[in-house]
Amino acid sequence: MPNTLTSYIQGMRRQYLDELIELLRIPSISTLPEHRSDMKRAAEWVAGSLSKAGLENVKLIPTEGNDLVYAEWMHAPGAPTVLSYGHYDVQPADPLGEWTTPPFAPEVRGENLYARGATDNKGQIFTHIKAAEALLKTQGRLPVNLRFLIEGEEEVGSRSISKYMAEHAAELPSDAVLVSDSSMFKAGAPSMDIGVRGMVYMEIELQGAATDLHSGLYGGVAPNPLEAMARLLSSLKDESGHILIPGFYDDVRQPDADEKASWARLPFDENEWRECNVKAPVLTGEPEYGVLERVWTRPTLEIHGMPGGFTGPGAKTVIPARAAAKLSARLVPDQKPEIVAQLIERALRERTPKAYQFQCRLLNTAEPVVFPPGGRFNRAGAQAIEKVYGKPPGYVRCGGSIPIVPLFARQLHAPVVMIGLGLPDDGLHGPNEKFSLENFYRGIEVIAEFLQFAARA
Amino acid sequence: MPNTLTSYIQGMRRQYLDELIELLRIPSISTLPEHRSDMKRAAEWVAGSLSKAGLENVKLIPTEGNDLVYAEWMHAPGAPTVLSYGHYDVQPADPLGEWTTPPFAPEVRGENLYARGATDNKGQIFTHIKAAEALLKTQGRLPVNLRFLIEGEEEVGSRSISKYMAEHAAELPSDAVLVSDSSMFKAGAPSMDIGVRGMVYMEIELQGAATDLHSGLYGGVAPNPLEAMARLLSSLKDESGHILIPGFYDDVRQPDADEKASWARLPFDENEWRECNVKAPVLTGEPEYGVLERVWTRPTLEIHGMPGGFTGPGAKTVIPARAAAKLSARLVPDQKPEIVAQLIERALRERTPKAYQFQCRLLNTAEPVVFPPGGRFNRAGAQAIEKVYGKPPGYVRCGGSIPIVPLFARQLHAPVVMIGLGLPDDGLHGPNEKFSLENFYRGIEVIAEFLQFAARA
Repeated sequence: MPNTLTSYIQGMRRQYLDELIELLRIPSISTLPEHRSDMKRAAEWVAGSLSKAGLENVKLIPTEGNDLVYAEWMHAPGAPTVLSYGHYDVQPADPLGEWTTPPFAPEVRGENLYARGATDNKGQIFTHIKAAEALLKTQGRLPVNLRFLIEGEEEVGSRSISKYMAEHAAELPSDAVLVSDSSMFKAGAPSMDIGVRGMVYMEIELQGAATDLHSGLYGGVAPNPLEAMARLLSSLKDESGHILIPGFYDDVRQPDADEKASWARLPFDENEWRECNVKAPVLTGEPEYGVLERVWTRPTLEIHGMPGGFTGPGAKTVIPARAAAKLSARLVPDQKPEIVAQLIERALRERTPKAYQFQCRLLNTAEPVVFPPGGRFNRAGAQAIEKVYGKPPGYVRCGGSIPIVPLFARQLHAPVVMIGLGLPDDGLHGPNEKFSLENFYRGIEVIAEFLQFAARA
Repeated sequence: MPNTLTSYIQGMRRQYLDELIELLRIPSISTLPEHRSDMKRAAEWVAGSLSKAGLENVKLIPTEGNDLVYAEWMHAPGAPTVLSYGHYDVQPADPLGEWTTPPFAPEVRGENLYARGATDNKGQIFTHIKAAEALLKTQGRLPVNLRFLIEGEEEVGSRSISKYMAEHAAELPSDAVLVSDSSMFKAGAPSMDIGVRGMVYMEIELQGAATDLHSGLYGGVAPNPLEAMARLLSSLKDESGHILIPGFYDDVRQPDADEKASWARLPFDENEWRECNVKAPVLTGEPEYGVLERVWTRPTLEIHGMPGGFTGPGAKTVIPARAAAKLSARLVPDQKPEIVAQLIERALRERTPKAYQFQCRLLNTAEPVVFPPGGRFNRAGAQAIEKVYGKPPGYVRCGGSIPIVPLFARQLHAPVVMIGLGLPDDGLHGPNEKFSLENFYRGIEVIAEFLQFAARA
C-alpha cells in the first residue's frame, strides 16, 4: 500500500534540501556579537518557514538576548500536545582553514551536506518543520496539537529560553517535548536518548602562605597548596575509578531491565569504540560496570584544570600562596546536584590539612533526568523509528548534560522524547560539520510518523 | 690604638655614598632589551671605579651578552689570590607605583639607602671595590693578590660568565672566591653563608587520550591525566614531608658539629619567623628536623605548577589529552643533580598507570655545595666580621641555589667565601629595595679586614 505521506516527503527531497541550504547560509553564530544581525535574519527565516509550513500564531518573542521563535497548530482537541524544541544558533566555525568548503557555503558531497549547523541544529529542527508541513499538505491537519519553541542561544547557555520558560511555562501546556539535538548510536543503528546526566561544576581553592614564596628559601617548611591540592584530589577516587566521597552513590538509580536489554542490541565493540573515540591504550573507570553503563548511568568526578603557581614555558621556582582546581561530577538519577555539591565540599573540607584554608565555589549545576523507555511518547518514537528504519531503536543515554531537557521536564511536567538524527562522526562544533542526507530525509519521515503515533499513544 | 684603615674608611663615608648613588642611577636592567645601553654604561662606570681605586689591567671583556668587568692587583707574591665576584645588573623595578621614591633616583631615608640594586648587588660589590681602594690608599698595597670579575647577567642566568669561566678558568688561578650577594641572618646578627642548595627542575607530562575529550560524553571511561598527575605527585611525598623516592636521601650529608653548634647562637624564634616570613597557620615538612635544618640542609621536592586542561575563568568540561607538572628538588651535599633527576624520573615512570604515556624533561640543574666553616678563608671571614661587628658570625646556608657558587668552586678548585651584607627585609627584586647604610659602611671595613686576615690564613 503506497503511503501518501511518505511518497509526498520523498518527492519533496530536492526542495527540502534547497530550503535547508538557504538557512545554513546564514552565519548565526551566537557567541560572536558581530553576528547579531545574522541572529535576527535566522530567526526571521525560521519564522517564515513555519508560516509557509502552515503553522499558526507564528511570532518572534523578544528576549534580552536573541529572539525565540514560536509557532503552533492547536486544532486537534482531545489529542496530545507536543512541543518541538530546537535552536537556530550555531557554534563559531574556526579553525576556518580546516574546512574543505566554507562553513556557510553549504555543499553536498557524497551522501552528506556540509555546513556549520547542518546537524547542530538547523538540519535537525528543520526535519520537525518539514514533518509538520508534510502532514498539513497531505492530510490538511496535524494528528496532534503542536507547538514550536526554537531558541537562538543554545550554544551560549540557553539563558533567555530558561528565563522565558520560568515565566511562561503555564501558557505552554504540553504532554511531551520533542527534541532532535543529538546523535544516533551509529550509522545504521537508530537510537533514542532516554536520559541525560546532570552535573555539578565547582572550583576549589587552597591557600597556604600569605604570598608566593621562593622554593629555595622556603622549600621544606612552607605549605605548598599545589601539593596539598594534588593529595586532596587523589583522595576523591581510588585507582579503579570509585569515588571515595561518603554518600556520593546513595541516590544512584540502576537502569531498568528494558533499558539494559536494549543495550545488548547495540552494535558496540569496546576496542573499536576506544580506538575511534578515545585513542588511549586502555579505558579507565569502574571495572564492574561496562563502558556504556559507565558513560550513561554511572556518576563521575573529573578534574578539568588546576590553576595556580607557574604554568608558562620554562622554570620558575615559586611556592604559590594559592592553588585551585576545577572539577565536576556528572550525575545520574536520582542524585540531586545540591546534595552532591555539599557532599563533595564536605569531604574536601574535612580532608584539608590545617596548614591550608579551603574555599569552594559552585559554578554550574544541571539535573540528571531519565524517561522510562516504556513511556507512551518514547514508545511512539520507537514505533516511528522502527517503521522508517526497519529496526527498533536502541535506548541510549547522553553522558553529557543538556540543561534544557530537565528544565522542560520539570516546568512542563512532561517527558522529553529525544530522537537524535545526527551521527557520531558529524563533526559537531568542529570543522566540516555535516548532516547525513539519508538521516535528513528519513528524519522528516520519522518525525511525521512520531506525531501520528503520538496521537494514538 | 687608632686603626688607620678603619679611620680612613670612616672618614670617606660621605664620598663612598655619593659614588654609590651615581652607580645606582644607571637603570642597568638586564632582562629588558631597551636597557642595553645602560648595561654598557654601568659596566664602564664599574671599570672606571676599579681604575680609580688603583686596580690594574682593568678591562671590559665582551661576551655574547653584557660585558664582564675584570680588574686585578697581583703584587703580593706568596700571598693568596682572592677573586671578588659580583654583578652590576639589576632586576626590573615594577610595580613602579609601589616605590616611595623612584627606583633609579636613590634616596637616603633614615638609616637606609633606597634604590633598585642598592643591595642586589651594586651596593655590595661596591664594598669590595672601596675596601681594595682603602687598603691601597692607606697601605700602598694589598695584603693579597686580588681579581675582580663582575658580570652583567646575574639576573638573567649568568650565561656569559659561565661560558667565560668554562673557557678561561685556568687563566684566573685563585685560592678563594669572595661573594657578597646574600643577606645576614638578621639585623645585628652577622652571618656567613657557607653553602647553597642545588637543584633539579623538571617538567613532566602525562598523555591519556589522543585529543581533549568532553567530560560528559567520555567521563567515566577516558583517562584523565590531571587525575593521574595528582595521584602521581601525591605519591612522591608523605604527609609529613618525607620524600618517597627510593634512593633520594642516600647521598645526603649531615651538617657538621661546628655548623650545628653555630645555629644555636642565631637569634631565631620559629613562631616569629613563621609569622614574618611565611604567614601561614603552621609550617610543614619533616618534623624530626628543625626549621633551619629543613631549609638549609635537607633536600626538598616542590610542585610549581600543573599546566593542562582549562584554567581560565568559569567552567569548561574538558578531559584534557595531556597534563603536565613543573617540579623541582632542592639538593644538599653530596647529592648529584643528574642522579637525583634519574631517581625522580624512574619513580614517576614506574608509577605511571598503563593508560598514560609519561614524558620528562630536565630544565635546570645546579649543584649543591658547602664549604667547611673551619676552612681557612671562611675563618678569615669570621675573624673580619667579629672584628668589625664585635661578635662572631653565625654559619648559615642559603636554601636557594646560586649556580655561580658551585661553578666557581669547581672550576677554580677554590672555596667560595660568602659574606652577605644585606638584610632579610631589604626587598630584593621587589619595590623599595634598600641597603642599610650601617652595613654598607661596615661592610667596606669587613671586606678590607677579610683581605688582611686572608693574607695570614
